[in-house]
Amino acid sequence: MARSLTILGATGSIGRSTVDVILAHQGELRVEAVVGGSNAEALANVARKLGARFAALADERAGAALRDALSGSGIASGAGDSAVLEAAAREADVVLAAISGTAGLRPTHAALKAGRRIALANKESLVCAGAAFMADARRLGVEIMPVDSEHNALDQALAAGRNGDVEKAIITASGGPFRTWTRERITAASAEQASAHPVWSMGSKINIDSATLMNKGLELIEAHHLFGLEAERLDVIVHPEAIVHGLVQWKDGAVTAGLALPDMKVPIANALRHHERLPMDLPRLDLAAIGRLSFEKPDETRFPCLSLAKAALEAGGAMPTILNAANEIAVAAYMAGHIGFYDISKYVERVCSSFAGGSVAAPATVSDALVIDGEAREAARRLISA
Amino acid sequence: MARSLTILGATGSIGRSTVDVILAHQGELRVEAVVGGSNAEALANVARKLGARFAALADERAGAALRDALSGSGIASGAGDSAVLEAAAREADVVLAAISGTAGLRPTHAALKAGRRIALANKESLVCAGAAFMADARRLGVEIMPVDSEHNALDQALAAGRNGDVEKAIITASGGPFRTWTRERITAASAEQASAHPVWSMGSKINIDSATLMNKGLELIEAHHLFGLEAERLDVIVHPEAIVHGLVQWKDGAVTAGLALPDMKVPIANALRHHERLPMDLPRLDLAAIGRLSFEKPDETRFPCLSLAKAALEAGGAMPTILNAANEIAVAAYMAGHIGFYDISKYVERVCSSFAGGSVAAPATVSDALVIDGEAREAARRLISA
Repeated sequence: MARSLTILGATGSIGRSTVDVILAHQGELRVEAVVGGSNAEALANVARKLGARFAALADERAGAALRDALSGSGIASGAGDSAVLEAAAREADVVLAAISGTAGLRPTHAALKAGRRIALANKESLVCAGAAFMADARRLGVEIMPVDSEHNALDQALAAGRNGDVEKAIITASGGPFRTWTRERITAASAEQASAHPVWSMGSKINIDSATLMNKGLELIEAHHLFGLEAERLDVIVHPEAIVHGLVQWKDGAVTAGLALPDMKVPIANALRHHERLPMDLPRLDLAAIGRLSFEKPDETRFPCLSLAKAALEAGGAMPTILNAANEIAVAAYMAGHIGFYDISKYVERVCSSFAGGSVAAPATVSDALVIDGEAREAARRLISA
Repeated sequence: MARSLTILGATGSIGRSTVDVILAHQGELRVEAVVGGSNAEALANVARKLGARFAALADERAGAALRDALSGSGIASGAGDSAVLEAAAREADVVLAAISGTAGLRPTHAALKAGRRIALANKESLVCAGAAFMADARRLGVEIMPVDSEHNALDQALAAGRNGDVEKAIITASGGPFRTWTRERITAASAEQASAHPVWSMGSKINIDSATLMNKGLELIEAHHLFGLEAERLDVIVHPEAIVHGLVQWKDGAVTAGLALPDMKVPIANALRHHERLPMDLPRLDLAAIGRLSFEKPDETRFPCLSLAKAALEAGGAMPTILNAANEIAVAAYMAGHIGFYDISKYVERVCSSFAGGSVAAPATVSDALVIDGEAREAARRLISA
């Protein structure tokens, strides 16, 4: 019998790659539901192509358009928050959670509460509400398979030993577009320059996070929750070719690494594995053809966001939630041309400091996390517009 | 309670590294027996240092010297084949099998027949008698942990999936001292030049095998037996830095790799793991400090021994046994200055061809393997002296 799958964020970048993976495994993977944001046309197309049973849009106003676009297909549809949550909780073997930003938090959590196995691509579930999210996963016995290339690589590498034998888990960073730039040159960099990612094509907010290395800092926070590893056992290394995605250093001195060509279909297929891996008809990694892999230490002077994220992880409590919220607002201000590149880290640091005195405890529920997230965003907005 | 260990080949290169590993874990690893070749003084030193219960030398004539060297220690001793076999079969949790050459075959097999878990560093057990050896291991439920850095790396990487999901297992080659030499220059190379290994310090026969790449060919044959992978699922890549030792390419496009600094204590410690890994106080792999890893295809025109070994693996039957025996004789003739570098592959090929017509079946027992080994050596000697 085919395994059934629901895709939250079916029209985004990860969602589109997931559709490709599913189309390569028709008969093995059946699609229960697909969820999109506001594009009725795009979601209806995906739903028809995959033969989904249910389609839901977050934007309530687009519900009629979706119904029209699906007419005659026999695919049920809905729109608005409750339709999205309903889609997330429907009976399915796996829910691929790829709605980006805090908007993905509640739907991902709804799938988890329904006991669905989660293939997780929504960073905020762990960065903003990691403690609450993982506590619920443990309580309900829900397995979480990371889709991010770095965490997926670590997940595979960690199979070579026990958590207690891990000395360090290391994720790689391409280094972003400013890897070789001087601090002076970066200071004046425009959001357009920062958006030019050397390896991956992604959304623009995540491209800016890649340029500041905040992206790697957030991934350390995710790794902490996913694998139960403390800050001291997590690290980042710069690797411009983006072939090695994660490495585990064991206490006997051996290292196990996860590699793949930079194509999101590889970690997506891996996260959807069940007993056995899904065969993928994609180009294979050919190290002789690539010739060389290079590595360097990240420069936290030129990329202070990485230090800030490490500090937030070490501080614990609600600090990662606050850091993430402040970063979102600062990046938006940078993209709008209101602040400069190094103002991003400056404002994130100020927002974190303003909350540090109160030593806010880790949010115990997703709702608590969203409240702190909102407060931190508000604090960031006030500081930036002051 | 401490785990007990017997070391076959305690005074050789692997044996000495094993002693270092054990001394770092006193109280956890107890030494039952140590076995050496003919050096009584060296073996007695090791036995005293490790507090072994029994010491045995293969050379019967050195028995008295060993007894003298151990007098007052309370350590029992013996000499000659039967003493070695007795040592191998003694009650112990693990037998580290590191006697080199075909001399290691019977003692290693004795440990296996006694049901001892084997940490295997003797190549000939698999190259010369792999089918018989592995059949006995399966029948007796004996676990075999590879000590070779390449196979140990693969063993760890293979933990990330199932055998049926493996598309290819790849071992790395440093490329040897002639990696960048032209065929003309290699043709005239002396055994001394061939013995200069760029990364590992090993015995001289194995250094020549590393210069011809026969070493990698033999390792493919070992990998075939150890992991149950056919010739089509095995490959070699040249990697001069010798940091990545083995890679597993999975059918979903992901790759898991085993890395470590080139220090035999790492794979030895790993092969001695039990539930958990042994903590090792050794320098850690620092990829940022190393900076770059490079990879290239092996050149089978300049290094025809690799093709010959692949052909022997594909031919199956007794061909790997014959190849290995012919290679030993040809390498000895090269080291003695009787033949040139490319005569090694020439004679190996001729010996293999002379047996090919008869399509000799895979030796079903270790004794059968030794008979074929002897015949192939004799054929090689005849050809070379003709």
